[in-house]
Amino acid sequence: MISIFHVENRIEANMNRDQVKVKSDELFDFTKQTLIHAGLSKKDASITSKVLLTADKRGIASHGVARLNRYLTAIDNGVIIPNASIELIKETPVSMVIDGHGGMGAVVSYKTMQKCIEKAKKNYMCFASVRNSNHYGIAGFYSLMALRENLIGFSATNSAPLVVPTFAKDAVIGTNPISIGFPGKNAPFLLDMATSTVPRGKLEVYARDEKEIPLVWATDKHGVPTKDAPKVLENVLYRKGGGLLPLGGSEEKTGGHKGYGLSVMVDLLTGGLSGGAMATEVYGRKNHPSGVCHFFGVIHPDAFCGLKSVETQVEMMISLLKGLSPSKGNHQVFVAGEKEFIAEKKCEKEVLLQRKVFETLQKIGSKNGLCLQSSDSEKN
Amino acid sequence: MISIFHVENRIEANMNRDQVKVKSDELFDFTKQTLIHAGLSKKDASITSKVLLTADKRGIASHGVARLNRYLTAIDNGVIIPNASIELIKETPVSMVIDGHGGMGAVVSYKTMQKCIEKAKKNYMCFASVRNSNHYGIAGFYSLMALRENLIGFSATNSAPLVVPTFAKDAVIGTNPISIGFPGKNAPFLLDMATSTVPRGKLEVYARDEKEIPLVWATDKHGVPTKDAPKVLENVLYRKGGGLLPLGGSEEKTGGHKGYGLSVMVDLLTGGLSGGAMATEVYGRKNHPSGVCHFFGVIHPDAFCGLKSVETQVEMMISLLKGLSPSKGNHQVFVAGEKEFIAEKKCEKEVLLQRKVFETLQKIGSKNGLCLQSSDSEKN
Repeated sequence: MISIFHVENRIEANMNRDQVKVKSDELFDFTKQTLIHAGLSKKDASITSKVLLTADKRGIASHGVARLNRYLTAIDNGVIIPNASIELIKETPVSMVIDGHGGMGAVVSYKTMQKCIEKAKKNYMCFASVRNSNHYGIAGFYSLMALRENLIGFSATNSAPLVVPTFAKDAVIGTNPISIGFPGKNAPFLLDMATSTVPRGKLEVYARDEKEIPLVWATDKHGVPTKDAPKVLENVLYRKGGGLLPLGGSEEKTGGHKGYGLSVMVDLLTGGLSGGAMATEVYGRKNHPSGVCHFFGVIHPDAFCGLKSVETQVEMMISLLKGLSPSKGNHQVFVAGEKEFIAEKKCEKEVLLQRKVFETLQKIGSKNGLCLQSSDSEKN
Repeated sequence: MISIFHVENRIEANMNRDQVKVKSDELFDFTKQTLIHAGLSKKDASITSKVLLTADKRGIASHGVARLNRYLTAIDNGVIIPNASIELIKETPVSMVIDGHGGMGAVVSYKTMQKCIEKAKKNYMCFASVRNSNHYGIAGFYSLMALRENLIGFSATNSAPLVVPTFAKDAVIGTNPISIGFPGKNAPFLLDMATSTVPRGKLEVYARDEKEIPLVWATDKHGVPTKDAPKVLENVLYRKGGGLLPLGGSEEKTGGHKGYGLSVMVDLLTGGLSGGAMATEVYGRKNHPSGVCHFFGVIHPDAFCGLKSVETQVEMMISLLKGLSPSKGNHQVFVAGEKEFIAEKKCEKEVLLQRKVFETLQKIGSKNGLCLQSSDSEKN
């Protein structure tokens, strides 16, 4: 799996002072035990930990164990209901409607995707629309589940209303990510993208660094593009107006209506088809289940020209793209999923956590009598 | 169907001096007869005319009868093969692989979508990947076919390599549009968007008007963002380097890698799944069939919570969006498909053509003994 992308095999290459190295197995166990303490069954705690850790391994720290504290608070507040029953509302040979009844997003999603994979193996494809779930982690996790079985995978979710529709003043739609994965001979093509230009986390980083943000990222309380990250974050928090911009920015001239359209498409595939929450209904009631909705899809390559053909085509496409001359000032062209694929190769045994995240986890652990060590400290 | 969007019912409202009014029926007949002269069967000529005219009615003039001349040239050059046999390569209850054998894109696509609709009515959904077709007009036409039957419709196509991947110097992927339509109570949600920031036609308009283009539209021959539209058009024509930018522009910071990822996704759904042409293979050989590939999908609402539920959710979403306060300097928020829906209401009986397009059509007509009149001239 390594030939097509260049993998630098030392985790230290990217490490900086604000980071702490932790053994993947230990972090997995720590997360799992913490979730069991919070009321999840062993199996559900294991699934959730796997979803979170996969994000850290793939370099998407914002959706990794850094979320654990928020998940615990959500359990405390009644937003996430541990071990909620997952209800199959409707089923056809190629589709399902699922009600998560406020359960842990990763658990509802993992189990739904597993069933989709089973059904696609029998009936060529399966699509599922899910209501009443919660934050499900990285969208790409579920496409990866399909890829591991040599199937084409699709996943999307709606989310908290942080994004402003084109020409609107207020944020009413989510960053609503979509992911699609196609199996390849040496590496898959795996797209995993928010339909906003950037997620909220990016603004937090810029605010912390006191840097101005590009004008295609967010608007002020009047709906006018702004460079002021701290102000946007405050406005969003207190619903004063403005918010994140859809992919393409604030104008039709720059294609903002397209990102906006994709975000609404996700709302309709998720909440629309499942009869669940959309737009401002998501996280609409404090201390109640968030109502987050998902959409999953699995297509068997045999529905079309078969696995070999798909793998060959994906390989051809990746080879073409990786072989391109870079534009002035750039060094190489990347393919969707490549950076994450390389990160995961590097972080199989150890992951890097932000020191702040590591310290929060230690605090959580101390409440439950659980210990989390950095692998640096072991060496000393 | 009118209550939800405001329809200004006089076509003259938007008319300008460079435009000519033509009766829809007459334009349809003219286009059809011209295509019959060019060798298409009556049925195929009728389908193609319908696809082209729908674009004009919906205000997407770049994909309307303005394309007729190019189609005729393509027939002359062996790029489009009139009345090519459409071959069903593979079929399952929910999928098809089709080979268009170089036929007229609109015909291959219309017939494929019709079969998808039939199959979705029986088996809840159907997806088709099509190879060896040609330019198929507006992506939205095929979603509209599904919407007319109260089904969810999806369509995408690859296209000539005019777009540069993020960080690449040369254009190797297409503007690869996607369209998805959900039926609503009073109006549908109908997204129809190129995955590039703008199509080539937009640069042509700016070049004609001697206006600078925004830096998220295109790159120069070194792959650096440029404001110089005529230069980009020349570079693209002679493959000197550079080209259109994906939705999101040239940088990862502005989300350009997302538009690039969506474009590659379309290549994989179309050429990837059908075993057809992708990227630079599309229009890869002069005076040969273009190899353009498509992807179509139809989902029956009964696969999920049924038509009533979908319609209600779509209505709720549209009402929410139309009810939003506009941002400073703007007057209203639009919903995907709204502008085209309104245009089509206005242009049921008469469409507006650019005078240049009208004159080209008249020239084409004179060769075949066909006459096209403006409806203004009738009144005089």
